[in-house]
Amino acid sequence: MIPRVYAPDATAVGATIALGEDEAGHLVRVRRLGVGAEVRVFDGRGHEWRGTIRTASKAAATVALEAATTPVTEARIAYTVALAALKADGTDEAVRDAVMLGAAAIRPFVSARSETTLAALERGRRAERWGRIAVASAKQSGRAVVPPVHAPVAFETLLRETTATRLLLVEPACGEAVAIADVAAPAAVTLAIGPEGGWAPAEVEAARAAGWIAVRLGGRILRAESAPAVAVAACQAVWRDA
Amino acid sequence: MIPRVYAPDATAVGATIALGEDEAGHLVRVRRLGVGAEVRVFDGRGHEWRGTIRTASKAAATVALEAATTPVTEARIAYTVALAALKADGTDEAVRDAVMLGAAAIRPFVSARSETTLAALERGRRAERWGRIAVASAKQSGRAVVPPVHAPVAFETLLRETTATRLLLVEPACGEAVAIADVAAPAAVTLAIGPEGGWAPAEVEAARAAGWIAVRLGGRILRAESAPAVAVAACQAVWRDA
Repeated sequence: MIPRVYAPDATAVGATIALGEDEAGHLVRVRRLGVGAEVRVFDGRGHEWRGTIRTASKAAATVALEAATTPVTEARIAYTVALAALKADGTDEAVRDAVMLGAAAIRPFVSARSETTLAALERGRRAERWGRIAVASAKQSGRAVVPPVHAPVAFETLLRETTATRLLLVEPACGEAVAIADVAAPAAVTLAIGPEGGWAPAEVEAARAAGWIAVRLGGRILRAESAPAVAVAACQAVWRDA
Repeated sequence: MIPRVYAPDATAVGATIALGEDEAGHLVRVRRLGVGAEVRVFDGRGHEWRGTIRTASKAAATVALEAATTPVTEARIAYTVALAALKADGTDEAVRDAVMLGAAAIRPFVSARSETTLAALERGRRAERWGRIAVASAKQSGRAVVPPVHAPVAFETLLRETTATRLLLVEPACGEAVAIADVAAPAAVTLAIGPEGGWAPAEVEAARAAGWIAVRLGGRILRAESAPAVAVAACQAVWRDA
């Protein structure tokens, strides 16, 4: 497979662009590519080019953009995937898979049963890490769009999200909930997935009061790390967003 | 959460059953439970009981079955999830998630672009390993059913699978394919997911000739490890199997 390179500064056919240190290092040291090798360059905003490496050292490389190419199709519906921060590296997996499926934005949050705090996430610079994972996942899934990973917020802040359709993924035991097949296809949707311990009952009530819709997904108990991918996939299949 | 114990020999309320060494060790050494602790016992065939530990040592334990309990709902549709064996431990993840979502059976196979062989899978006793993962995933997802993990077969053997509806998950670039929303809800379905390198063109043709339906899932390139969960979730959402 031709390697894909993320270059947010890429402009247009004919330009020769300098890659960032991480991208250059990956091509030269990890993939062992040199001058003359073909790559695909994407700018994270939906543009992709065929390019050729012009100069290469261990910490720097330049690539000439030679022709525009067609990246994979983006989802028709804008999915904002709101992810409760999980224990250990669980959120990494959730971010990776949400981006792979076509999320338009990632909005991490901390809720009542989260086993971490906003302060700990900030100290650990987690949002920056998740941003790097979003880039890596866009590369692997063929996307030319890198969705933004927003700074983590409290659940109360998330509730004020204003997309017209807002879905709260609830567990089988969590009271009244509709199936995704009962929700009309929206233009944009926010989909919130809770932490390992689920939602506090007051959170489900607050979300309902704020106009969110509680949705269920199958009858089994899902791993918190897998639930975001399962939820986005279910929405896309039902809403024919393929 | 009350620990769940797999006991294929469990029979009925009133019985006291001996746990296998693995299950006993997990309760006693890992969970540090002793005589009098409450557990849930399931037999892997859909039955679950509330039980109490009666005797416990590091390698053995007995549990009295005290009352039948209601496990999570099983899927209405029988999903046979046919998984191409993946590199390294990739298949572990695929088995875990397919069981979590409610698969009725796991059928591993080796196809043209698999980077392993049936002989290597047998030497590595992979099917036994995947069977243990199926048990662990049933425990975590609340299922009282442990789906069988069949012995790996060649792709040609898989093609002779006889469920009425047989779906081959293909990549965006793989030619004509329908969306899952175009497939009527079946009573039973076999869903085949290829290896990291996808299907050889001849395999897709052979499957079509044998009556399989090529289906696509969104427009992005999915990780081979994540694709099975995404596919089952999409089917369940479209077919309202919740």
